[in-house]
Amino acid sequence: MAYNPDFATIAEQFVAHYYGTFDVADANQRIAGLSPLYDPTNSYVTFEGNQVCGREAILQRAASLTFREIKRAVTKTDSQPLPDGSVLVSVLGQLKTDDDPINSYTQVFLLRPANGSFFIANEIFRLVLHDL
Amino acid sequence: MAYNPDFATIAEQFVAHYYGTFDVADANQRIAGLSPLYDPTNSYVTFEGNQVCGREAILQRAASLTFREIKRAVTKTDSQPLPDGSVLVSVLGQLKTDDDPINSYTQVFLLRPANGSFFIANEIFRLVLHDL
Repeated sequence: MAYNPDFATIAEQFVAHYYGTFDVADANQRIAGLSPLYDPTNSYVTFEGNQVCGREAILQRAASLTFREIKRAVTKTDSQPLPDGSVLVSVLGQLKTDDDPINSYTQVFLLRPANGSFFIANEIFRLVLHDL
Repeated sequence: MAYNPDFATIAEQFVAHYYGTFDVADANQRIAGLSPLYDPTNSYVTFEGNQVCGREAILQRAASLTFREIKRAVTKTDSQPLPDGSVLVSVLGQLKTDDDPINSYTQVFLLRPANGSFFIANEIFRLVLHDL
């Protein structure tokens, strides 16, 4: 294993694929699309401070999200390589669900190589809100 | 190597130490404090989209920052463990330098264990600005 020289391209392609998969109104379709991105045991997701581990728990929470529509604009995607071939991705963006106001958010992914592809080993999401 | 069960404590202590070291007016003091946190070759820092690698280049840029005073408030620190004992840290905060307006920022760190301690293997910083 070594630093992957294509980390920036991998990050950009992942971000497009992830949000294209996540931002669908139908929850069943969203879950079916997200499922292969997570490992049964070695995936961690922290969403607004709540951490779950493993594909089943991650998808269960993703299924519980209730929005009819989500609009998203990615402002910046930064990425870096890790010596084991993983790719660290940091996203700054804006999103709007249904009639809620537009919010800035930050989302971090660590993509780990496995079986010729990558899975999401780590994911951290935060809305940019300072008064909660 | 294994998941470090103390990842949350390690993250909190690191964040306090890092900003306490970074947020000093004297550039020489800042650089001397930051130096041991980076590896001579295996540290990556991306600051507002500009990536450098290795302790010398990282410190050189840190030395080029010109502010007389920095005020900072950390809003949230999220963290997750990695199977090699590393700790992923995501910080949401606000900062103000000199007479500039207050800005939100996001900063990601990947802390890798080495010699009984941790070094910053990866670091990504972004101001939360969408119109640049």
